[in-house]
Amino acid sequence: MASVSWDRLVDGVLSGDVRSLARLITRVENREPGWQEAMKALYPASGKAAVVGITGSPGAGKSTLTNAVAGLFAAQGRKIGVIAVDPSSPFSGGALLGDRLRMRESAVHPDVFIRSMATRGALGGLCQGARDVARIMAAFGKDLILIETVGVGQDEVEVVKAADCVMVVLTPGQGDGIQALKAGIMEIADIYVVNKADRDGADEVVADVLGMLSIAGGEGSPVLKTSAVTGAGIAELAEAVLAGIGRAKNRETWLRERVKAEILSLMENEILNSLVGKFGKNGALEKAVSGILDGKSDPYTAVEALLPGLSEAASGDGRR
Amino acid sequence: MASVSWDRLVDGVLSGDVRSLARLITRVENREPGWQEAMKALYPASGKAAVVGITGSPGAGKSTLTNAVAGLFAAQGRKIGVIAVDPSSPFSGGALLGDRLRMRESAVHPDVFIRSMATRGALGGLCQGARDVARIMAAFGKDLILIETVGVGQDEVEVVKAADCVMVVLTPGQGDGIQALKAGIMEIADIYVVNKADRDGADEVVADVLGMLSIAGGEGSPVLKTSAVTGAGIAELAEAVLAGIGRAKNRETWLRERVKAEILSLMENEILNSLVGKFGKNGALEKAVSGILDGKSDPYTAVEALLPGLSEAASGDGRR
Repeated sequence: MASVSWDRLVDGVLSGDVRSLARLITRVENREPGWQEAMKALYPASGKAAVVGITGSPGAGKSTLTNAVAGLFAAQGRKIGVIAVDPSSPFSGGALLGDRLRMRESAVHPDVFIRSMATRGALGGLCQGARDVARIMAAFGKDLILIETVGVGQDEVEVVKAADCVMVVLTPGQGDGIQALKAGIMEIADIYVVNKADRDGADEVVADVLGMLSIAGGEGSPVLKTSAVTGAGIAELAEAVLAGIGRAKNRETWLRERVKAEILSLMENEILNSLVGKFGKNGALEKAVSGILDGKSDPYTAVEALLPGLSEAASGDGRR
Repeated sequence: MASVSWDRLVDGVLSGDVRSLARLITRVENREPGWQEAMKALYPASGKAAVVGITGSPGAGKSTLTNAVAGLFAAQGRKIGVIAVDPSSPFSGGALLGDRLRMRESAVHPDVFIRSMATRGALGGLCQGARDVARIMAAFGKDLILIETVGVGQDEVEVVKAADCVMVVLTPGQGDGIQALKAGIMEIADIYVVNKADRDGADEVVADVLGMLSIAGGEGSPVLKTSAVTGAGIAELAEAVLAGIGRAKNRETWLRERVKAEILSLMENEILNSLVGKFGKNGALEKAVSGILDGKSDPYTAVEALLPGLSEAASGDGRR
C-alpha cells in the first residue's frame, strides 16, 4: 500500500508539495510505522507558524467565519492552513447528512489548505492529532494555522487551549448562548466575536460578554461584531487576531505547560498501545475480562493484577 | 480532613445512608488514597442497576426531560439516581452564569439522588468517573441511573455509549438539529425523542429521523414526541426506556467491550499517574521540556528517551 517512502514525503512537504502534505498527514494520523521519525524530521522546520483556535457553540457560524478570515489573510499573502475539528462543520461533515451541508461550503482562497479531522477514533487522541497536523502544516510553510472546533466537548476545548490566540464565536438568538458553551471556554478566550451581528439581539450578547468580562477581570479582551456572510467586521477581526498572537500572556509558563502536556499525551498513547499489544497477544486482557464477567473479579482488582507494583506508587497523587 | 474512615462510608452506602453516598462519591472522584479498595468493596453490590444515557444538543431540554422521567419512575417506586455531565445543565451549571440557570431547576421527586459531574479535570477521566459514580449509586440501592450528557464532545459521547439504553433528545427549531450532534451519536441511540413537540416543526424532525433510520437500517427504534414542560409523552417515553433496557442487543459482545474499555482506561490512568509521579520527582519531565524549548530535542524524541524499549513494541498497532 505505502509505495512512497517516508523520506520522499518529508522532502515533499518541506519543498511545498501539496500532495505530499495531504498524504503525510494521513499516514501520521493513521500512526503508520515510522510516523515518529517523520515528525522528528519535520520538527525543526515547524517552529514559525502561529496557531489560532476558533471555537463556539454549534450553529454560531464558525465555519463561515473561519473561511472569511482565512480568505482575507490569504489575500494579504499569508500562507494559511485550516484544521476543522467541528463535527458539525461543513468540512468534516456529519456522518449521514453531511453532504447536504457540505454544499454550503463557500469558496475559500485557492491557496488555503483545509484539513478536516474526525473527532472519533483519532489514534493518538484528538489533541495530539491536531498538534501533529498543525506541525506538519507549519513545516510545509504555513504561517498561520486556524483550528476550528466546537466549544462543547472536553477534548475539543483542549485542542484550542494550546493555540497562540483563542477566539470564541457567539451569536444572537441561540437562547442562552453563553451557557451552551462548555464551562471554561469563556475564560480562555483572547477575542470574543458576536457573529451574525445583523440579527436582533447582537448588542445584548455584546453587553453580556462585557458584563462577564468585567466580573472576571478580563476587560482588555476585544469583543467584536461580525457578519461572516456580508463580510462586516472581518477586517477588524483579522487585525485583532494578529494583535492577539503578538500579545505576550505569561508566555514562558504557558509554553512549558504546553510542551509538558504534549509529552504526557504522547507517553500515554505509547504505553497504552504497548500494553494493548502485550496483554492482547498473551491473552491476559481477555482473561481479565472473563474473570470480571464471571463475577470472580472486578476492574480495580484486575488492573492491580495486570500492573503489579504500580498502583501503590500512583495512588494519592492522581494528577492528570 | 478525612475523619470518617472508608470502611464506615462503604457501610453507610451499603445500608442506604445518603450522606455517606455523597461523601464517598466525592472521595472517589478526588482519587483519595484507598479509593480502589472502596470500589472493590462496593463492587459486588453494584450489579443490578440499569444505566440509561440521555444525550442531545445543548438547549434540547435534556435536563427538564431527565427530571420528568426521573420523577415518573420515582413515583412508580423505583430508586432513581441522576448523573448530570452536561456543562449547560442546571445541575452542573456554567462557570459564571450558572446561578441564573440553576433557578430553573424544577422540583424532582425527593427520593431522586442527583449528582453533577464537572467535565473539566475529572481525575480518572470523565468516562471512568461516570462509571464509578453509577456503580456507587447502584451499590447504594438505586435501580435505574440516568446519565445526562451533552451530545457533542467525544468524552461525553463515550459516557453514554456504555449505557444499557441510550436516548437522543432532539428539538424543533434548532436549525439543522441533527447536524449539530456529534457524528456517531445518532447511530448509537436506542430511542429518539423529539422534545418541545408542541413547537412548529416537530413533525419534520420526526420525519427526518425516520428517514435517517430507514437509510441506516434502524427502523425498529422508537421515535417519540414529548413535551417535558406539559408532561405530554413522558409516560410513553418511560415505557420505551424500560423496554429498551430489556432488549437484548448483541449483549455478550457489548459487555466484553465495555469491560475491556474500563480496564484499559483504569490502566492508562494508573500508569500516567505513576509516570508523572516518577518523572516529576526525579526532574526528568522538566528536563525534557527544557530540552525541547531550547531547540535541542523534540517531543517525539523526548518520549522515546523517557520510555526506552516501549515504542518499538508499540508502533504499528496503534489501536486505542
